[in-house]
Amino acid sequence: MEETFVPFRGIRNDLRGRLMCYRQDWTGGFRTGFRILAPTTYIFFASAIPVISFGEQLERDTDGVLTAVQTLASTALCGIIHSIIGGQPLLILGVAEPTVIMYTFMYNFAKDRPDLGSKLFLAWTGWVCVWAAILLFLLAILGACSIINRFTRLAGELFGLLIAMLFMQEAIRGLVGEFRLPERENPKSIEFQPSWRFANGMFALVLSFGLLLTAIRSRKARSWRYGSGWLRGFVADYGVPLMVLVWTAVSYLTAGSIPKGIPRRLFSPNPWSPGAYENWTVIKDMLNVPVLYIIGAFIPATMIAVLYYFDHSIASQLAQQKEFNLRKPSSYHYDLLLLGFMVILCGLIGIPPSNGVIPQSPMHTKALATLKHQLLRNRLVATARMSIRNNASLGQLYGSMQEAYQQMQSPLIYQERSARGLKELKNSTIQMASSMGNIDVPVDESVFDVEKEIDDLLPVEVKEQRLSNLLQAIMIGGCVAAMPVLKKIPTSVLWGYFAFMAIESLPGNQFWERVLLLFTAPSRRYKVLEEYHATFVETVPFKTIAIFTIFQTAYLLLCFGVTWVPIAGVLFPLMIMLLVPVRLYILPKLFKAAHLQDLDAAEYEEVPALPFNLTTEGVMSRAASFADDGEILDGMVTRSRGEIRRMCSLKVTSCNATPSKEFRSIQSPRLLDKVYSPRISELRVDQSPQLGGGGPFSPSTGGTRASNLGKTG
Amino acid sequence: MEETFVPFRGIRNDLRGRLMCYRQDWTGGFRTGFRILAPTTYIFFASAIPVISFGEQLERDTDGVLTAVQTLASTALCGIIHSIIGGQPLLILGVAEPTVIMYTFMYNFAKDRPDLGSKLFLAWTGWVCVWAAILLFLLAILGACSIINRFTRLAGELFGLLIAMLFMQEAIRGLVGEFRLPERENPKSIEFQPSWRFANGMFALVLSFGLLLTAIRSRKARSWRYGSGWLRGFVADYGVPLMVLVWTAVSYLTAGSIPKGIPRRLFSPNPWSPGAYENWTVIKDMLNVPVLYIIGAFIPATMIAVLYYFDHSIASQLAQQKEFNLRKPSSYHYDLLLLGFMVILCGLIGIPPSNGVIPQSPMHTKALATLKHQLLRNRLVATARMSIRNNASLGQLYGSMQEAYQQMQSPLIYQERSARGLKELKNSTIQMASSMGNIDVPVDESVFDVEKEIDDLLPVEVKEQRLSNLLQAIMIGGCVAAMPVLKKIPTSVLWGYFAFMAIESLPGNQFWERVLLLFTAPSRRYKVLEEYHATFVETVPFKTIAIFTIFQTAYLLLCFGVTWVPIAGVLFPLMIMLLVPVRLYILPKLFKAAHLQDLDAAEYEEVPALPFNLTTEGVMSRAASFADDGEILDGMVTRSRGEIRRMCSLKVTSCNATPSKEFRSIQSPRLLDKVYSPRISELRVDQSPQLGGGGPFSPSTGGTRASNLGKTG
Repeated sequence: MEETFVPFRGIRNDLRGRLMCYRQDWTGGFRTGFRILAPTTYIFFASAIPVISFGEQLERDTDGVLTAVQTLASTALCGIIHSIIGGQPLLILGVAEPTVIMYTFMYNFAKDRPDLGSKLFLAWTGWVCVWAAILLFLLAILGACSIINRFTRLAGELFGLLIAMLFMQEAIRGLVGEFRLPERENPKSIEFQPSWRFANGMFALVLSFGLLLTAIRSRKARSWRYGSGWLRGFVADYGVPLMVLVWTAVSYLTAGSIPKGIPRRLFSPNPWSPGAYENWTVIKDMLNVPVLYIIGAFIPATMIAVLYYFDHSIASQLAQQKEFNLRKPSSYHYDLLLLGFMVILCGLIGIPPSNGVIPQSPMHTKALATLKHQLLRNRLVATARMSIRNNASLGQLYGSMQEAYQQMQSPLIYQERSARGLKELKNSTIQMASSMGNIDVPVDESVFDVEKEIDDLLPVEVKEQRLSNLLQAIMIGGCVAAMPVLKKIPTSVLWGYFAFMAIESLPGNQFWERVLLLFTAPSRRYKVLEEYHATFVETVPFKTIAIFTIFQTAYLLLCFGVTWVPIAGVLFPLMIMLLVPVRLYILPKLFKAAHLQDLDAAEYEEVPALPFNLTTEGVMSRAASFADDGEILDGMVTRSRGEIRRMCSLKVTSCNATPSKEFRSIQSPRLLDKVYSPRISELRVDQSPQLGGGGPFSPSTGGTRASNLGKTG
Repeated sequence: MEETFVPFRGIRNDLRGRLMCYRQDWTGGFRTGFRILAPTTYIFFASAIPVISFGEQLERDTDGVLTAVQTLASTALCGIIHSIIGGQPLLILGVAEPTVIMYTFMYNFAKDRPDLGSKLFLAWTGWVCVWAAILLFLLAILGACSIINRFTRLAGELFGLLIAMLFMQEAIRGLVGEFRLPERENPKSIEFQPSWRFANGMFALVLSFGLLLTAIRSRKARSWRYGSGWLRGFVADYGVPLMVLVWTAVSYLTAGSIPKGIPRRLFSPNPWSPGAYENWTVIKDMLNVPVLYIIGAFIPATMIAVLYYFDHSIASQLAQQKEFNLRKPSSYHYDLLLLGFMVILCGLIGIPPSNGVIPQSPMHTKALATLKHQLLRNRLVATARMSIRNNASLGQLYGSMQEAYQQMQSPLIYQERSARGLKELKNSTIQMASSMGNIDVPVDESVFDVEKEIDDLLPVEVKEQRLSNLLQAIMIGGCVAAMPVLKKIPTSVLWGYFAFMAIESLPGNQFWERVLLLFTAPSRRYKVLEEYHATFVETVPFKTIAIFTIFQTAYLLLCFGVTWVPIAGVLFPLMIMLLVPVRLYILPKLFKAAHLQDLDAAEYEEVPALPFNLTTEGVMSRAASFADDGEILDGMVTRSRGEIRRMCSLKVTSCNATPSKEFRSIQSPRLLDKVYSPRISELRVDQSPQLGGGGPFSPSTGGTRASNLGKTG
C-alpha cells in the first residue's frame, strides 16, 4: 500500500481495488455451497458470545439502560452493512470491550449531572458518536491509514496478546463470581444459600473447564487417528458450537435435584419486554441536550475516534497478514470512512457502535483458510484418483492436478502469488515423483497415498468472500429474537468459552512464541528448530531475542495495568500507538537492523524473497526448502491443529534458503540429518540432469555437502 | 525356563538361580543412593492407595471385622518378607480386589451360620488359608509353574485389561457415590443435606479429574520443554505422589466456608482404637471352629489357591516380560511356595493374605527401567563430556563410553544379553560417527549434543534389586501408624487415582493397542507404521488382526460380566486360565501359525532373532534399523512418557530386519522416505569400506535401493 496523504486518494484506491473483485466476492462465496457454514458458525459463536456477555456487563454498569439486546443489535446491524458494502469482508465487526469501558465511563459521568442524567444519557452519546464519526471521516479522507505499515508486529501482536489477557481476565473473574452473591438478585432466595452457592461454584468449575478442554480438543479433530474422515472433519468444523450445546445440555442433567437458579444462566430482558425499546427513538431527545454538553461531547469523541481508528486498523491488519497469501487488496481508508457512517447510525438509534474485533477477525481468516484448503484438497484428490484410474504417469498426474488447481483459482489480482502456489505444487510433485525413482511409470494408490500427498502439496490460501461474514451477522441478528433460547446457556460455559478464545488467539503470535522460547530449557531449544519456526529463531542471537521480548512483555504489562485504572483505562490504545514512534526511532538504536528486521518485520524496510531461477546449489536447496516449508505449513494447517497455526512467510523461506545461519545454530548432527536429509535427497534429484553420472558419489557426500552449504552463503 | 514336573526340581532351579545374584540384589540397590526413592515412592502410592480403599470396601462388607488396618498390615508384612527372601524382587505384593471379593463372599456365608457367625469368621478363614496354603505347596512342589510359558500374551494382557477395567469401574462407582448418601453415616448431619451432597459431588468431580489430568501430565514431565532438567526430572519421578498432596491441599482451601464433612475423606479406625486388635489373636479360636466347617473350608480354599496360583504367576510374568531385557532369572516355583507360607501366616493372625498384584508389579519394573536409564545416562554423559574435554575423536569417545557402560553392568547371568546392549551402543555410535562424515577428528559439544546422543544410545535395562520393594513395603507398614494423616486424603482423590492407575496400565499392552488399531481410520493407519510398533502390524493382514482382537474383546467382556455375578464372581481367574487350552488347541486351527506367532508370541514356539554377523546389504539395514529401534525405544523411554511405554522386543527387531514386509505394508512414498532415508544414508556409510569409490552413485539410487530391499527377502 503506497503511503499517500493526498485527500481521498487512499479511499479511491481502495474502492478501485475492491470493485474489481466485488462480484467474485459473492460468486466465490455461493459456489462454496453448504461448506461455508463451517467458518460461519465458528465465527458466529466467537462473535455472539462475547457480545452477549459484554451486554450483560453493560447492563450492570448502566443500570439497565443498555442491555445485550442493544449490543447484539449493533453487532448485527454493522456486521450486515460491512459485509455487504464494506471493503474488507474478512474483517468481523462487533461491540468490543473498549467500547463497553467507554460507555460505562460516559454513563458514570452523565448520571450525576442533573441536567443530563440517565434520561438524556443516550441522547448525549448520540452527540458523542456524531463527533467521533466526523473525526473518523477526517482521518479516512486524509489517508491516516497510510501509516498502517508502521504498525509492525510489535504493536499488533502486543495488542492481540493484551486482548487475550482481557478475555482470560474476564473468564477468571466470571468463575470467581460464580461462588459469590450476584448483585441485583434477591439474596434470600434458596439458590443463594451458602451451600447452594458453593455447589453452584463447583458446578461452574466443572462446566467451564469441561467446555475449555473439549473445545480445544475438538479443534484438533482433523489430526485424530480414530473415527471416519467425515466425522473428524465435522467435529473439527463444528466442534466448538457443538461443545457449547453439549455442556449446556449437561447443565440440565441435574435439573431435577437442584434449585432452578443453578447453574446460573444468562440474564437478559426479552427484546419485546417493555423498556427494551426506549432507546430506538433517542434521536428525538438529541436536541434536548444542553449545548454545553453537545460541545463537551467532543472530548470522549476524540478518545473513541482514536480507539476505533487503531482498533479497526489493527483488526484489519491481523485479519490480512500476508502469511495468509491473500489475493485481494486491503481497504483501510474506505473501511474507516464506512465505520464513521456506522458510528453515526448507531449513535442516532442509541446503541453502542461496533468496530473491527480481535481475535475474531484473524480467527475468521484462519477458518476460511482451512475451508479453502479442504476445497482444494477434495478437488485435487478427485483429479488425482481419476488420472490414477486411467493409470497416468506421475508426470501426467502432476499435469492434471495443476490444471485442476488453476481452475480453482479466483480471477487474480496479484498473478505472481498464484504462480507461487503453482510453483510449490510443482516443486513438491517433482520431488515426490523422483523420490519414487521414476517419473514415467504409471502410479497406483498403493504407492501413492493420494489423500496424504495432496495435503503435502497444497499452499496456504484463503477463501476470500463476503458470504460467511454476512451470514454470521444475520445469525447474530437472529440472536436478538432467540434471546429466550440463549438464556439457557449457563454463564459458566461462557467463562470457559472466553478462556478458549484467549488460548485460540495465541498460536501464530510470534510475541507469544518468543515468550515461550524464553522459558524453554536450553537443552530443549533444538526442538524448536526441529519444528516449523519463524526466522528469528535461527538468525537472531538468543540474548537479543530475550532482551527484545522482555521489553515487549514489560510494555504489555504496563498496558494491562493501565486498563485497570478507572477512567484513564480507555486510553490504553494510545499506549500501544505510542509503540509506533518507539519502534521507529528508539528500537533501531538499541538493536541491529538485521535482527530488528527478523524480530519485527516492517513492510517499509522489508527485503523481498530471492527469486527461484538461479541454478546454483544454494538455490536448489532453496527450492527444496521452499517445498519443505509448504509441507510443514500444511502439516500445521491440516494435521497439527485442523487450522493454520504458524503461517509461512516469504521471509522464512528466504531465510531457510541460507543454511549457513541455520547450520551454525544447529546443535546436533542428528538434528542436522533431520533438517537436511530430505533436502539433500531433493538436491541430488534436482541436480541429476547437471550431474549425470559424474564421478563417484561417496557415502559421506551427503554430510559434507550439507557442511559445504554451511560454509557457503 | 525348562518344563519339568519332577517334584522340587523347579524350586531348586529357582533357588540356584536367585542365590547367584542375591548379594548383588542388595549391593546394586544400595549403590543407587537416594535415587532409589523415585521408584519406591511411586510404587508405594500405587500400592498403598488401592489397599486402603479395598480396606474401606472390606470394612463395609464385613461390618467392620476387617478394616484398612488389616489390609495394610498384610500388604506390609508379606511385602517385607517377599522383598527379603522372595525369589522375584520385582514382584509387588498386596491385598487385591479378588481377595476382597473372596472374603466378602465367605463373610456372607459365615455370618448366617449360628455356630460360626461373625465371631468365628476369622478363625474359619484361618482354616481356609491353611488349606489354600497346602494346595499352593503342592502346586509349587509339583512344578505347576512350568506351564507358565503357556500363559501367552493372550491370557496375560487380557487379565491386565480386566484389572484395568475393574479399577476404572471402582473409580466411576466411587465418583457416583460422592453424590449419594453413604451408609453407616447419620443422614441427619448437615453435610448430607441435598445441597451439600450435590456440592460434595461436584467438588469430588473437580478433585478427581484434577488429580487424574495433572498426574498423567506430570508423568510426561521429562519430555516437557520448559523448566530446568532437574525440575523436569523431579516432577516426572515424584509427580504423582506430589499431585496427591497438592489436591489434598486444594481440598482444604475451602475448609472455612463449608461443613467439616466436605469433601468426604478416608474413614478408618486408628490401629490403636479398641477392636482393631482382636483379630491378631484369632489363632486361639481356630480350634473352636466346628470340624464340619474346618473340612468345608477346603472348598473356598481351592478357589483361593487357583486364584493366587494364577494371579501371582501372571503378575510375575508381566513384571518380567522379556522386553525389559532382565539379566536375572525368574523364580516362579519358589515364589509360589513362599506365597503358601505367607498365606498361612496371614490366616493365623486373621488378616487377608496378599499376592502379586497387577498393575503395580509391571509399573514397578517400568519405574526401575527409567531409573536405570537415568543412571546409565548420567554416567555416560559425564564420560563423554570428559573425553570431549580431552578432545578425543569419536572413536575414542565410543571406547571410553563403552568402558563406562561395562563398569555399570551388574555381574551378569546371561552374558550375551549385555553383549546385545553393547552391540546397540556400538551400532548407534558408529552410525552417529559416520553420519558426521568422519570418525577421527576431535568432536566438540557444538556438533555432538552429548545429552541427546546418549539418550539415543542407551538400550533398555532394569535396575534389578530388592531395596525399592523392601522400602515400599516398610512405608506401607508405616501407613498403619500414619492412619490419622492418611485420613486427610479426600476419597475423591482416590477415585481419580484409580482412574490414573487404570490408564497407566494400558500402554505397552498389545491387546489394547490392537483394539485402538481397530478404531483407527484406514487412511490414518500409516501413522501407526511411522511410530514404534509391534511386529504384527506389519506381518499380519488387518482382517486377521481384527478377528483375533474381536474374539479377545468378547472374551474380556465375558470375564468382566462374570465378576458381576454375586458368588461365581471369584471364579473369573478360571475363565482366564481357560484361555490356555483355547490358545493351545483351538486358535491354531483358526489362525495361520505365523500370524498367531506374531499376534500372540508363545516362548515355546518362538524363533530367535537373526544374528548380526552377516555382511549383506539386508543385514546392514538390519543393523541400522536395530539402532533405529534403539532410538525410537529410548524416545519412548525418555521423551514421550518419561518411562518405558512400548517395549522393544527381539522379535520386533528381527522383523524390522525384513523390510520386504514393511515395504509392502507402506502406503506412501513419502512415508517410505521417512522410514528409509536414515537407514539408506547409514547403508551407504556402512558400505563405504566395501564400495570404496565404486561406480557413480546416481541420485535416485536411494529410492531404487529401498525398493530392491523391498523385492529381496
